[in-house]
Amino acid sequence: MAPVTTAGKEMHALVERLYPLCRSITGDGVRATLDIVGEYIPLQVREVPTGTQVLDWTVPQEWNIREAYIDDPAGNRVVDFAESSLHVLGYSVPVSATMPLAELRAHLHTLPDHPSWVPYRTSYYKPEWGFCLAQETLDALPDGEYEVRVDSTLADGHLTYAEHVVPGQVTDEVLVSCHVCHPSLANDNLAGIAVATFLARALAEQKPYYTYRFLFAPGTIGAITWLARNAERIERVKHGLVLACAGDSGRLTYKQSRRGDAEIDRVMRHVLAASERPHHVTEFTPYGYDERQFCSPGFDLGVGSLSRTPYAGYPEYHTSADNLDFVSPEAMADTLAVCREAFAVLDRNRRYVNLSPYGEPQLGRRGLYDSLGGRSDAKQAQMAMLWVLSLSEGEHSLLDVAERSGLPFGTVVAAADALCGAGLIEA
Amino acid sequence: MAPVTTAGKEMHALVERLYPLCRSITGDGVRATLDIVGEYIPLQVREVPTGTQVLDWTVPQEWNIREAYIDDPAGNRVVDFAESSLHVLGYSVPVSATMPLAELRAHLHTLPDHPSWVPYRTSYYKPEWGFCLAQETLDALPDGEYEVRVDSTLADGHLTYAEHVVPGQVTDEVLVSCHVCHPSLANDNLAGIAVATFLARALAEQKPYYTYRFLFAPGTIGAITWLARNAERIERVKHGLVLACAGDSGRLTYKQSRRGDAEIDRVMRHVLAASERPHHVTEFTPYGYDERQFCSPGFDLGVGSLSRTPYAGYPEYHTSADNLDFVSPEAMADTLAVCREAFAVLDRNRRYVNLSPYGEPQLGRRGLYDSLGGRSDAKQAQMAMLWVLSLSEGEHSLLDVAERSGLPFGTVVAAADALCGAGLIEA
Amino acid sequence: MAPVTTAGKEMHALVERLYPLCRSITGDGVRATLDIVGEYIPLQVREVPTGTQVLDWTVPQEWNIREAYIDDPAGNRVVDFAESSLHVLGYSVPVSATMPLAELRAHLHTLPDHPSWVPYRTSYYKPEWGFCLAQETLDALPDGEYEVRVDSTLADGHLTYAEHVVPGQVTDEVLVSCHVCHPSLANDNLAGIAVATFLARALAEQKPYYTYRFLFAPGTIGAITWLARNAERIERVKHGLVLACAGDSGRLTYKQSRRGDAEIDRVMRHVLAASERPHHVTEFTPYGYDERQFCSPGFDLGVGSLSRTPYAGYPEYHTSADNLDFVSPEAMADTLAVCREAFAVLDRNRRYVNLSPYGEPQLGRRGLYDSLGGRSDAKQAQMAMLWVLSLSEGEHSLLDVAERSGLPFGTVVAAADALCGAGLIEA
Repeated sequence: MAPVTTAGKEMHALVERLYPLCRSITGDGVRATLDIVGEYIPLQVREVPTGTQVLDWTVPQEWNIREAYIDDPAGNRVVDFAESSLHVLGYSVPVSATMPLAELRAHLHTLPDHPSWVPYRTSYYKPEWGFCLAQETLDALPDGEYEVRVDSTLADGHLTYAEHVVPGQVTDEVLVSCHVCHPSLANDNLAGIAVATFLARALAEQKPYYTYRFLFAPGTIGAITWLARNAERIERVKHGLVLACAGDSGRLTYKQSRRGDAEIDRVMRHVLAASERPHHVTEFTPYGYDERQFCSPGFDLGVGSLSRTPYAGYPEYHTSADNLDFVSPEAMADTLAVCREAFAVLDRNRRYVNLSPYGEPQLGRRGLYDSLGGRSDAKQAQMAMLWVLSLSEGEHSLLDVAERSGLPFGTVVAAADALCGAGLIEA
Repeated sequence: MAPVTTAGKEMHALVERLYPLCRSITGDGVRATLDIVGEYIPLQVREVPTGTQVLDWTVPQEWNIREAYIDDPAGNRVVDFAESSLHVLGYSVPVSATMPLAELRAHLHTLPDHPSWVPYRTSYYKPEWGFCLAQETLDALPDGEYEVRVDSTLADGHLTYAEHVVPGQVTDEVLVSCHVCHPSLANDNLAGIAVATFLARALAEQKPYYTYRFLFAPGTIGAITWLARNAERIERVKHGLVLACAGDSGRLTYKQSRRGDAEIDRVMRHVLAASERPHHVTEFTPYGYDERQFCSPGFDLGVGSLSRTPYAGYPEYHTSADNLDFVSPEAMADTLAVCREAFAVLDRNRRYVNLSPYGEPQLGRRGLYDSLGGRSDAKQAQMAMLWVLSLSEGEHSLLDVAERSGLPFGTVVAAADALCGAGLIEA
Repeated sequence: MAPVTTAGKEMHALVERLYPLCRSITGDGVRATLDIVGEYIPLQVREVPTGTQVLDWTVPQEWNIREAYIDDPAGNRVVDFAESSLHVLGYSVPVSATMPLAELRAHLHTLPDHPSWVPYRTSYYKPEWGFCLAQETLDALPDGEYEVRVDSTLADGHLTYAEHVVPGQVTDEVLVSCHVCHPSLANDNLAGIAVATFLARALAEQKPYYTYRFLFAPGTIGAITWLARNAERIERVKHGLVLACAGDSGRLTYKQSRRGDAEIDRVMRHVLAASERPHHVTEFTPYGYDERQFCSPGFDLGVGSLSRTPYAGYPEYHTSADNLDFVSPEAMADTLAVCREAFAVLDRNRRYVNLSPYGEPQLGRRGLYDSLGGRSDAKQAQMAMLWVLSLSEGEHSLLDVAERSGLPFGTVVAAADALCGAGLIEA
């Protein structure tokens, strides 16, 4: 794994700032999150009214919460939203009541197998109220009358998401997406937000070929809303990557697009293999994060998903154990590095046409041998030129050349640049 | 292997009734066989006159035999057709003569490696007479004059075959074929007849999607005759299966069609793999049973062949040891069960179109989550719906969905039915 | 490996005659080489003037050399071109000078890792002079003034190459090419010339289907010149083979064409596998011998390359150790035998159309079973006929039939001949 870079530390600091906020698929927690991200990169924040029809869905009411607690018969506050945003069932309707423990139990969610952890639960589309707590807290509750209060509102409002665009040389786009709807969960939410943010910063330092669009949106309904509102833009989205679970200590996992042979799939496989990192490439499944929406058959975009340990693949998933200790600066720096490597390849993966395809052109006369430095580098550079000439008939990309020749992608790019400069090939 | 079902016992009983008859490619033995099968399922019996041109062939003269024997010099009957139909060379011309053993030997067929077994031999297209006997019988024959007699007729008549049709919802057909031209051989003939008969009965109990046509015909010339007389029907035959050697104790063998990727090939491979039965899938070869004719390049039908131990793969093949003990109720019941499973898959293997292909449709609002029962079943059912939605663009069949998702075919069918009912997909 | 055939001995004798000559990409050494080859097979010798534009290249000045030596301070001749053509840098410009050893060293080429071997070096396109010698010779040189002399000319003249054509039944061509530009190097030059020469003689003894064109030309510039001057012929070149490093003791190596699935690639893979020789099949790379030119993307011919130990794969490569002992009659005879086997397959690899594709034709009535000899041969011959009938729909070649059936190619050819004779298939 990469050493702790400055970016790694900065990403972890960002995660720490975002961690306490109570995010959901709508509401002020999302807005506060986007405000903080907006300190790092400029964001266009979009507000979409409740009731807006988006594809097969409708934007729901906006949920906000001020406080939520349970007081035991002795008046002790045994569960308190102020301590952790996980303690309340997401989208809980308001409640203010006194009831015996037996009745309260139906609204309490625990993890018996992990008695000290608090689960993460929501009920977006069915009106419910509830609390999440540790099994050991529940076990210690005495019988008696409990006071429960959820001071929330569920009312017409907006769904909030944000975009950030790094303009490129062409209007064809690469979409990078992460979800911003999970409350105090570090890996399954915040690490992806942090890596996306610093990836955007890194891309802005160069003038990329593609235009890179970053989407910070609540899962499912957010992606669906963006798709519904960007019908005319979709065909410009040539490649994409969903970032999630980007900060744990596990090996990298790339989940391929539904197409399986999209260019992003080939690029990610190549970069992961070439990097010699331990990693795992999996087939597409119609479950997981927002690749489900981007890869739905009507869109079928070339969008894959990059995680470390994937969705539901670790016991801490959707529990209070997915906390600030569960993600590390090193892991986020490593995820960021792979994204940068992949986009560097994607950005340079052109197809060229050999303008002198009959026999080999005489490279020596054009100084294409002389210009080379060290001996073995020179040999590789020369082979790369011969390979680019051989495979440049408009069908093979530089990645094809790199994979067929076994040469590093960067060496192939340098050869293409030299041949382009000599007028022997053109894009 | 499946337990002995009632059908297994009934199939073995049918084999026992058919066993003594002297079948050949024409003649009364075939008619008697079809009469008995006709007690189980209604048959349309066809009689095609000698001399009829059928594709590259001509229907031969009809052969019938009353008796055949060899008497030794002492007048003992040492070989007798009345004991087994195998004792006479199939299509033997009549003979009535006395001759020394030395001369007789040229007409005697044995199996030196299996001295107690009687071989099965024929000479359909070259006029010959002969007897088949055990090597140990031959070895015991004293020198001297023998009386030989074959009371057969070879004369203009008919070739006989039969059809049985199970009507379906569509006129597209599945052809199930077995040969009825072998005399007292249990596995290589009768087991296939029995399985085909009971398969037809089982299919009649449901209203299948396809129309299933069962063909009981002599090998080669019978299939060729059917093909010649059904030119206009051939294009309706979408799938087919030749049944042979269907009752021995060996593992199942599926021989693929010449196309190798016909739907029946995929279905059989899937069903055999999913059933976890030991089995073997082999490539097409232009030899074997009547798949040779159905898969000839001019027709190239999607017809495979299902056997247990395949053609010529067991020492008892084409000998008196392929007898009633060589086939078992259990094995025939197992072959029947696999056929039924395969046709159940084939019959439901539709392609659907997702009517809501942009993003995921909101399943919850349609009650497609609530309607589910147990927890892990529910999860599989939900995944199956997502997979069907993801792959329903008119190209992928439900079998494709099952194979790509790893879900059971039945679960995928249930998901398709639920989605169809909700108006989310259509066939 | 094959026993030493007469051809093996004759090929080695030819190599011995050619060995002393000083070949280069132009000049009298090439002409003398072609004169000798011309004693074995008639050659059309082509002379192309200096300055002729050939594709991206220009025919260079012609280089000839009479003598070249270094005399030490005591007047001893320590390096002498008369002893070996390797001693002078190829295309050395003339020099006649006296200089101290320190100054001379910049013009001396050795192999420190093989101190007794003389390297092979050239400088075709950059004017230089130089000598090649053993490291141990260099180490023994005393300080002092040396007399150096290269009596060469570099002047307008011609590039020389030769062709030999074995006419076939069709004008479609098979191109066999070898390079003739290396001086006293036995494997990397002369063995290929010898095998090509004797292959031409062998083909002339039969009337082949294809027209076989043999090209004896200097590497790179020679192939490019031929391509430039035969633009109208290129499309007739259906297959080709570059022969190089054809005489060492290593296993055979076939390097596939750029297309990778050209018919010559399939034929060579089949023949090498069927022969059970140890061998190696490699992917195309745009480096090596003149397959670089024939397979350049504008031409993309189906031309592979056959070697024993390939280019640069042995330490003796491009050194004085690639001498007459490094190549053997046995190895050259073996390479020749494989070429003959491959061209026998290529020459008979037709596609046929089954004229009786509906069901099997009745082979017995046409005597196609009776005509067969021994029992197991007969069975193979019968299977081969069924396979040819099954796959003859105009798409599959006899090699396809052989590979799919697992039958020997010769058996398949015999079956096709028999079926052709009976009017059942046609080419």
